[in-house]
Amino acid sequence: MPDPSAAKAALAAQKIETPSWAYGNSGTRFKVFAQPGVPRDPWEKLRDAAKVHEFTGVAPTVALHIPWDKVDDYGKLAAFARELGVSLGAINSNTFQDDDYKLGSICHPEAAVRRKALDHLLECVDIMDATGSRDLKLWFADGTNYPGQDDLRQRQDRLAEGLAEVYARLGDGQRMLLEYKFFEPAFYATDVPDWGTAYAHCLKLGEKAQVVVDTGHHAPGTNIEFIVATLLRENKLGGFDFNSRFYADDDLMVGAADPFQLFRIMYEVIRGGGYTSDVAFMLDQCHNIEAKIPAIIRSVMNVQEATAKALLVDRDALAVAQRSGDVLEANAALMDAYNTDVRPLLAEVRQETGLDPDPIAAYHRSGWQQHITAERVGGTQAGWGA
Amino acid sequence: MPDPSAAKAALAAQKIETPSWAYGNSGTRFKVFAQPGVPRDPWEKLRDAAKVHEFTGVAPTVALHIPWDKVDDYGKLAAFARELGVSLGAINSNTFQDDDYKLGSICHPEAAVRRKALDHLLECVDIMDATGSRDLKLWFADGTNYPGQDDLRQRQDRLAEGLAEVYARLGDGQRMLLEYKFFEPAFYATDVPDWGTAYAHCLKLGEKAQVVVDTGHHAPGTNIEFIVATLLRENKLGGFDFNSRFYADDDLMVGAADPFQLFRIMYEVIRGGGYTSDVAFMLDQCHNIEAKIPAIIRSVMNVQEATAKALLVDRDALAVAQRSGDVLEANAALMDAYNTDVRPLLAEVRQETGLDPDPIAAYHRSGWQQHITAERVGGTQAGWGA
Amino acid sequence: MPDPSAAKAALAAQKIETPSWAYGNSGTRFKVFAQPGVPRDPWEKLRDAAKVHEFTGVAPTVALHIPWDKVDDYGKLAAFARELGVSLGAINSNTFQDDDYKLGSICHPEAAVRRKALDHLLECVDIMDATGSRDLKLWFADGTNYPGQDDLRQRQDRLAEGLAEVYARLGDGQRMLLEYKFFEPAFYATDVPDWGTAYAHCLKLGEKAQVVVDTGHHAPGTNIEFIVATLLRENKLGGFDFNSRFYADDDLMVGAADPFQLFRIMYEVIRGGGYTSDVAFMLDQCHNIEAKIPAIIRSVMNVQEATAKALLVDRDALAVAQRSGDVLEANAALMDAYNTDVRPLLAEVRQETGLDPDPIAAYHRSGWQQHITAERVGGTQAGWGA
Amino acid sequence: MPDPSAAKAALAAQKIETPSWAYGNSGTRFKVFAQPGVPRDPWEKLRDAAKVHEFTGVAPTVALHIPWDKVDDYGKLAAFARELGVSLGAINSNTFQDDDYKLGSICHPEAAVRRKALDHLLECVDIMDATGSRDLKLWFADGTNYPGQDDLRQRQDRLAEGLAEVYARLGDGQRMLLEYKFFEPAFYATDVPDWGTAYAHCLKLGEKAQVVVDTGHHAPGTNIEFIVATLLRENKLGGFDFNSRFYADDDLMVGAADPFQLFRIMYEVIRGGGYTSDVAFMLDQCHNIEAKIPAIIRSVMNVQEATAKALLVDRDALAVAQRSGDVLEANAALMDAYNTDVRPLLAEVRQETGLDPDPIAAYHRSGWQQHITAERVGGTQAGWGA
Repeated sequence: MPDPSAAKAALAAQKIETPSWAYGNSGTRFKVFAQPGVPRDPWEKLRDAAKVHEFTGVAPTVALHIPWDKVDDYGKLAAFARELGVSLGAINSNTFQDDDYKLGSICHPEAAVRRKALDHLLECVDIMDATGSRDLKLWFADGTNYPGQDDLRQRQDRLAEGLAEVYARLGDGQRMLLEYKFFEPAFYATDVPDWGTAYAHCLKLGEKAQVVVDTGHHAPGTNIEFIVATLLRENKLGGFDFNSRFYADDDLMVGAADPFQLFRIMYEVIRGGGYTSDVAFMLDQCHNIEAKIPAIIRSVMNVQEATAKALLVDRDALAVAQRSGDVLEANAALMDAYNTDVRPLLAEVRQETGLDPDPIAAYHRSGWQQHITAERVGGTQAGWGA
Repeated sequence: MPDPSAAKAALAAQKIETPSWAYGNSGTRFKVFAQPGVPRDPWEKLRDAAKVHEFTGVAPTVALHIPWDKVDDYGKLAAFARELGVSLGAINSNTFQDDDYKLGSICHPEAAVRRKALDHLLECVDIMDATGSRDLKLWFADGTNYPGQDDLRQRQDRLAEGLAEVYARLGDGQRMLLEYKFFEPAFYATDVPDWGTAYAHCLKLGEKAQVVVDTGHHAPGTNIEFIVATLLRENKLGGFDFNSRFYADDDLMVGAADPFQLFRIMYEVIRGGGYTSDVAFMLDQCHNIEAKIPAIIRSVMNVQEATAKALLVDRDALAVAQRSGDVLEANAALMDAYNTDVRPLLAEVRQETGLDPDPIAAYHRSGWQQHITAERVGGTQAGWGA
Repeated sequence: MPDPSAAKAALAAQKIETPSWAYGNSGTRFKVFAQPGVPRDPWEKLRDAAKVHEFTGVAPTVALHIPWDKVDDYGKLAAFARELGVSLGAINSNTFQDDDYKLGSICHPEAAVRRKALDHLLECVDIMDATGSRDLKLWFADGTNYPGQDDLRQRQDRLAEGLAEVYARLGDGQRMLLEYKFFEPAFYATDVPDWGTAYAHCLKLGEKAQVVVDTGHHAPGTNIEFIVATLLRENKLGGFDFNSRFYADDDLMVGAADPFQLFRIMYEVIRGGGYTSDVAFMLDQCHNIEAKIPAIIRSVMNVQEATAKALLVDRDALAVAQRSGDVLEANAALMDAYNTDVRPLLAEVRQETGLDPDPIAAYHRSGWQQHITAERVGGTQAGWGA
Repeated sequence: MPDPSAAKAALAAQKIETPSWAYGNSGTRFKVFAQPGVPRDPWEKLRDAAKVHEFTGVAPTVALHIPWDKVDDYGKLAAFARELGVSLGAINSNTFQDDDYKLGSICHPEAAVRRKALDHLLECVDIMDATGSRDLKLWFADGTNYPGQDDLRQRQDRLAEGLAEVYARLGDGQRMLLEYKFFEPAFYATDVPDWGTAYAHCLKLGEKAQVVVDTGHHAPGTNIEFIVATLLRENKLGGFDFNSRFYADDDLMVGAADPFQLFRIMYEVIRGGGYTSDVAFMLDQCHNIEAKIPAIIRSVMNVQEATAKALLVDRDALAVAQRSGDVLEANAALMDAYNTDVRPLLAEVRQETGLDPDPIAAYHRSGWQQHITAERVGGTQAGWGA
């Protein structure tokens, strides 16, 4: 059995980035259900994110989404975050909500649209310079809905050209995280549909280009931990967008649909040497019907629990069973950790770092929800479109 | 080889209902791309639908969606449709876009919300009385996103209770078409997720309750024509919502993703005696990025082509091969019809009924698109939310 | 929190049937890897099954597969089982391994083949009379590989006719359990592909016909616990064939691929009143590469653990949260039970019933594996074909 | 419209390799149904393959599978093939049917098993030297059934090491084609599960290592033509294993399940410059229930028909529509070719090269089936295991 104190130290040092947009309204194509107390601007989003960090202790950074989080002075926003005890994280670009992007952004058949999209990406790097963010996270909605609609290969050429220009703009210590997605919003072909495509592009770009794994962006049945292990072996795993799904890109709370899968992913992260700051652990979720801040706290806790179990795997016993070809023993060694109730261990970690052992209860007691519900009246609530 | 003249007669008599909402804007959760010339009210939708019928000759009815197509005087709307050469078809209810429906409609845990949803459904039957519509099409977005969120079985009880009340309200000659859907917008459990659930409810309700098959609402790999054959055998196939998909409920043009599947479905319809007015053939699609009216014309033509091929199956030769257990010959008999280019046959059918043999070209030449683009300026374009 | 002593009583009374064929060799189409000590006849299979019961205390019955387990005197076999402390369970028919069944069995286009298959099924009922078995489990490999190969609807007619004849032969207290399967070995259409089809047939047959849910027989993403809840609501859940899968019908150890899903299924069983002898809990697995008896013990334990967690759900708290529409609290109430480590509770249950708290370790210490490896030399090992 | 004579020339020059094993018996894990007249050795397989070439004119090579096609003198086998008018094609290795390979071959935890597997692969290259084959096709059944069973990353290390040794052994003009497969026979993790993994290994190995796309080896919904386009863009597409599937790796006749997909794949092949001898077009199918030789002829014809349609795409019109962003026109340009009945064109191509326009009918008239049924009596029929 691994040393619990080592596990506790690793857990105390964990860092999970929360996304600014998860604090705003979201929904499906059928309906966005607004919630009371939702932030109306980036400043209020940061306040909520700071609450998540306050109660969990492991969510010290907040990802921004441009243009949803556009402000006049990013230095001021970064300073405000620091005052709240958090800091600004990855910059997420958005090349899917402008009318011009109907047929794509940097893969669009028209050069003018590609230029516009590229200018936006370069602006995101400018923002990174101002915020001190390390990572530019690129997700492209680009793709086609009908066979023949556009030339699959030319779109790859345009993609490569665009990525190269952005890559060249990156400063020292800055990275580009390229996300892939199986489908949606494109329904026939997506221009970066799988890890192989993202990997191939990143390989050509260079070391600063890394693949980001969104846990909801795979075909049914895909073994995600295999991809994680493979990307770590190739030194190309830049980070995660955590969420969970039963069907498609459902964007549910991470760990809610398949907690065993999350555990297996975290095991491969740790086993592959990815439990470091080189891999960004980010949430990317939509809390369509559940209260947002508690949902994000729960998500952070779900990642913690999966991590704790992964840290408790008796890797020596596992290796012995694996080497001897004992299928049942090897499986049992892994399952023994998974079946452990790690909530007491995490409660200890929290208490030792001065936190309440039950972050959800503490949040509810704090009165923050009542506060924002009362205070944030009027104005336009933040959402995917704003 | 079947008699082509019989096929032509069957094709000339075909009826495909187009949905009012397909003429309006639609999109994904990421973005709705507005299109020029899109209707701003039900009257304009009917004008566009009439154009589809004018050029195809087989789209004489238009489905309405309540409340999107609410008007003060449905009798007047019906009369307007008749003037345009079409008539009003199925009434589609909407119990997913009101804020009250966040946790469901007729399956909602609160009685008051269920009552509100039921009142809406009963109002839809009132509208049917006014429009002379035969079919009430019920699709419920009801479901849950998280395990434990609500009690799966109680939701079925509520569903059964609600459906029974609506069923009791149906007049002579009126029907209830119950739609099932694999997932979306609910991401853990959907209250009517498959044909079996819809069938079980319809069976208890009675003859006026029939199952409707939306071709995009199945798990990956599902054999839809088997479901069609089974429902016809059980006298429970009420109709189709046609569209096509590569992944989830993509709502692409029917026949665009898998034309062979559409052919197999139409073959089972014909073989099972379902090519009658007892089965409603409706489109239910979203033309997110393609021009709407031509996309609907293309969709109608795709159904026609699949039907033509299905009508051309040499069923005698097929039966001989099937009975003799000759796998390859039986498959070849079916494929022979599929591989036939039926476009000349359909061109003939059109010409014999006084239509242009090429409906798309005729539409483009008609100037209608330019007309509506110029005329429909200002106001609020129709969309899923209006 | 529910009373642990009630949970313990329920766990002590649990009954899980193991299948005779799981003790024999199995594999994929690519290779069957033989294992040392595998039984060579039904008598030896019963000996192994008795060991599983000896160490777990909850596997008192053994399912037979005809003709694999054909013996001259079933009364003698039943008596032998009783001597070993177990008894004979469901009789499983086999209409897929005779050369005549290439194009199906009771759905075959030729009457003679259907007759042969029906005679086999009737013989299985004769065997039930002799063994005292209650359940006839029917799984049909029937289906087609190519569109057009046979008439989908006629195959349903033949199926209905065949089932009716077998149903009529059932004695008092005997049941027919009809299994459905998404695909394999048929690759285009399967004659009983989903629960809806099985349900529709069972409904027409009568009360003695019940649906059996094999947890590996669904399309990707299918919500199995919804089906369980629905069938219980319809009084049509006859039993389970437990196993687990990542992709298709992988037949892995139950609980190995998605332990959370197994928990949700057991929760719906208990919540729906299905935790009684009216629902048969059976394993149906293939231990292709892992040691068979320990794998079966592990599988039994996995079902026990999922059941224990399901029994520990605080249903009062859950109902309160559900009624109030508190998505997160309701989900948390369910997850609280799932996250509990129930292994100590089950160890207690075992010790209180005189068993070793660790069945796997006890089995390994027993020397049985060495015994059978040494003794069962020569002869023909049992497998899927014998 | 493209020049039909250019299409005809391209079709006349097409080359499709048939696999020796498709002439033998095959089946599922449930049953192998033997067929009359099936070959009993490689020599008889070649005779059947020669018949396929005789009637289609485009199947001049035959892939071998080692050890199923082991002979004492490969030079003699090659000479025999030449006498029959065909030649020997790719050498397919087999590292899944020996008892030692229960836990893998070149990824196995034990060095001795890896050595054995590697020696087999090296022997395959020896055979290539003797037969003059260009391609070594590598498919590895390697993988694990249970989480934890083995170390995912170490297995990749072993794979890389093994592949490197084989690669080093390749002579001038010899290639290694690495196949990937989503799952089966491994059910948890497969060591080469997707194109990305195969690509990453091939990239490190060098130019002689190329990826082979088996059309049945993907997750549900995967856009295979995108992978084809991408691999061609990367100069890493070595060939195809053609077959078709509705669910998993069904190994049905190519084009039988989704002829539109096959057309799209062939379109990307042609558009990407892959319609050359650098890409091997091979069948890899199982004719479990249909007559083998006619099934293979049909499969060859299905590839021809898809190719003919792909060649008929009006690429100029398509490019114009694509560049202008006209979604419907671009889709229509592609569909116009797909909807064309190319059977008359192919009949012409056959007649112009001295073949019967209807290869299936010609085969049936030839009496070959009756001949082999009468002659091949006794002995052991070839199958997957022999």
